[in-house]
Amino acid sequence: MPELRQVNLSVEEIPDKWYNIQADLPEPLPPPLDPETGESRIANLPKMLIGECLKQEFSQDRWIPIPEDLRSLYAQAGRPRPLFRALNLEKRLGTKARLYYKSEFYSPTGSHKVNTALAQCYYAQKEGFERLTTETGAGQWGTALAYAAALTGMKCTVYWVRAVYSWKPQRRNLMKLFGAEVFASPSDKTEFGRKLFSKDPNHPGSLGIAISEGLEDSLKDPKATYSLGSVLNHVLTHQTIIGLETQKQFEKFGDYPDIMIACLGGGSNFGGFTLPFLGEVLTKGKKIRFIGAQSQVAPNLQGEYRYDFADYAEMTPLLKMYTLGHHLNMAPIKGDGLRYHACSPLLSFLRHKGYIDTIAYPGDEKKVFGLMRDFVRAEGFLPAPESAYAIACAIEEAKKPENAGKAIAFNISGHGFMDMDGYDEVLKF
Amino acid sequence: MPELRQVNLSVEEIPDKWYNIQADLPEPLPPPLDPETGESRIANLPKMLIGECLKQEFSQDRWIPIPEDLRSLYAQAGRPRPLFRALNLEKRLGTKARLYYKSEFYSPTGSHKVNTALAQCYYAQKEGFERLTTETGAGQWGTALAYAAALTGMKCTVYWVRAVYSWKPQRRNLMKLFGAEVFASPSDKTEFGRKLFSKDPNHPGSLGIAISEGLEDSLKDPKATYSLGSVLNHVLTHQTIIGLETQKQFEKFGDYPDIMIACLGGGSNFGGFTLPFLGEVLTKGKKIRFIGAQSQVAPNLQGEYRYDFADYAEMTPLLKMYTLGHHLNMAPIKGDGLRYHACSPLLSFLRHKGYIDTIAYPGDEKKVFGLMRDFVRAEGFLPAPESAYAIACAIEEAKKPENAGKAIAFNISGHGFMDMDGYDEVLKF
Repeated sequence: MPELRQVNLSVEEIPDKWYNIQADLPEPLPPPLDPETGESRIANLPKMLIGECLKQEFSQDRWIPIPEDLRSLYAQAGRPRPLFRALNLEKRLGTKARLYYKSEFYSPTGSHKVNTALAQCYYAQKEGFERLTTETGAGQWGTALAYAAALTGMKCTVYWVRAVYSWKPQRRNLMKLFGAEVFASPSDKTEFGRKLFSKDPNHPGSLGIAISEGLEDSLKDPKATYSLGSVLNHVLTHQTIIGLETQKQFEKFGDYPDIMIACLGGGSNFGGFTLPFLGEVLTKGKKIRFIGAQSQVAPNLQGEYRYDFADYAEMTPLLKMYTLGHHLNMAPIKGDGLRYHACSPLLSFLRHKGYIDTIAYPGDEKKVFGLMRDFVRAEGFLPAPESAYAIACAIEEAKKPENAGKAIAFNISGHGFMDMDGYDEVLKF
Repeated sequence: MPELRQVNLSVEEIPDKWYNIQADLPEPLPPPLDPETGESRIANLPKMLIGECLKQEFSQDRWIPIPEDLRSLYAQAGRPRPLFRALNLEKRLGTKARLYYKSEFYSPTGSHKVNTALAQCYYAQKEGFERLTTETGAGQWGTALAYAAALTGMKCTVYWVRAVYSWKPQRRNLMKLFGAEVFASPSDKTEFGRKLFSKDPNHPGSLGIAISEGLEDSLKDPKATYSLGSVLNHVLTHQTIIGLETQKQFEKFGDYPDIMIACLGGGSNFGGFTLPFLGEVLTKGKKIRFIGAQSQVAPNLQGEYRYDFADYAEMTPLLKMYTLGHHLNMAPIKGDGLRYHACSPLLSFLRHKGYIDTIAYPGDEKKVFGLMRDFVRAEGFLPAPESAYAIACAIEEAKKPENAGKAIAFNISGHGFMDMDGYDEVLKF
């Protein structure tokens, strides 16, 4: 074949352990803290997290084995996923850089979130739970958990911020097709929700409210547990399956990335793609530039590095993060998964140490989606709006003369087949 | 890993030739004929078809080499695509049959149509054309050609039956995102279209009218050629890449199918999946039961085996096919790609010789989509409405006691991410 456009791995090459970068950090990660007043959030963690996930959250082991049955579920979800060389895009751009993209867009639900959803369902079931509860904002996390619950034969209840629930009927129906219960939040299903719902049945809701409802629901049912889709260490660790596959694929290409790019909201996609490579930078003296592609409506990596809550309602412990403040009001964008006030503690620490750069694109999304269109016409895959940020950044880097001869790798965290209306609003087809 | 759930191939294992079953037929395929009156349709074929495609249409060579640059485009489109073992579904059904499905749902545009779209664009470009014209009904073929044109740097004009054009804005926008011109047909862009359009700008159109417009457009522009997405021999030959990959994957599973199932409208999906196996039945004495899954609104394999036109407007030669008559009125269904009055000559011939069975499901689609839901909850992939017919048939076969111990393979010809509204109408989430 003229030039290799794609490398995949066999099912047997699915990684059998996740990489936990905590083992390789130059100093320990600042621990979660309780706020100065009120009840302890840290004491609540065992009630909030699946046992094995809580253990992984603070583990200092470099490698965490992926149970064989879970590897089998990863195969079921279509892993491994190919790494593509973007030869068409390179030609279109006239760049002398080599461009590579990882295809999380093959996700059965639309995003990389399935990687941790499957892990959490697997552990929850092992620990005797029969139902998972969660909140969702854009809907990607709720869909992924609904999917994973279906595959593992568990029940799933999703509290979905009403403002989004209302205008994404297709995604809502997909969750229901997977067998999940889906409630617009605030709902009449929880005490906390009823307080707001009874005053205003059209209350638009918020991620904070939906978290509260999901937590209350799980705490009242001994057969249920709560599940989180981003920010926390164990979530990022599960996602390292992306980067670990990418490492093997780069070996087969006979190349190595000089620049790695992923979009970044809470950080699970960015972390999953880059952490195994960040580990090689920390321990093997490799040199890679890492760039988080963000929106100007939530450029959390440009915020302050300090302790803050992970949620609006202040139910989580305080985490040391780059944050814009947990009460930030963010304008709506189509790349809704990037609208989060803070970045995961692991990535925030690494940014603080100088390992991670960031770029933030205007909230009208015209530039980002315009560059996404160039990608689609060259490579043919339709990315999720969030992933379009990584693509835009990669194209801009490829155009810089100083990057001639460099290898630029980016992750396409999801597909955009359920986002065409959003693209139409901005691009006006 | 506990039990193998998936087998994929490396990029190097993408087949380097298509299989042309014409070489192995017990007698020659009945040739296309001209109608008794009017101008010759056969004399028009060289104007209607890309040169290399016309050659392949009548080729008696068993193997047709896939040019290396085209193989590279197949890699670009994500081929090879995995073959999955449906272990979860087997468990859910309590069947002792082994179920396997091929994942054409990984298609970048939503269906298997890209396999021939890429080939036709490749040859058209080699022959000096700069633009492709076509018609589309459900929209899958138009999207696939728009995609392939974008990847090969060609222009693409799609005439889309207005009745469908109007209610699929997302798919329309996807074609435009790929850079295609898309016109509701009848349009004011062609002489033939204007005749109808000027009388009624809301004329709902038909596939026959759209074909006429696409043909007229290409015939008037020496830089343009017309492209067809199903029925013809060369199209089915291009699609054999699906079955050829599946053969290699079955080898790696150490298994061989006893029953093969695919949905069937014009026949390109069914043919692509089964022809390489039908060849082994013809030449190697293998025993496989082949079932075309159809809709009762267009059960063409239950029609008559006789000469008929491939289009409503009688512009094509007469082809010997199983047909319901080319002026059949078909009720609308969500699996729109199955609404075609006749089956491809190759498959019709093989059915006539007793090699292909058929089943037709009720037009309300409740049964088919209900079984599709069982599949989704077990396996997690969202099929196109057309593919749901193959799934339904496979589930029914798996439940039959006489199929215990048998291997049942089905092809999932596309994904359903842009079809959730249709599913909702039937399943009422």
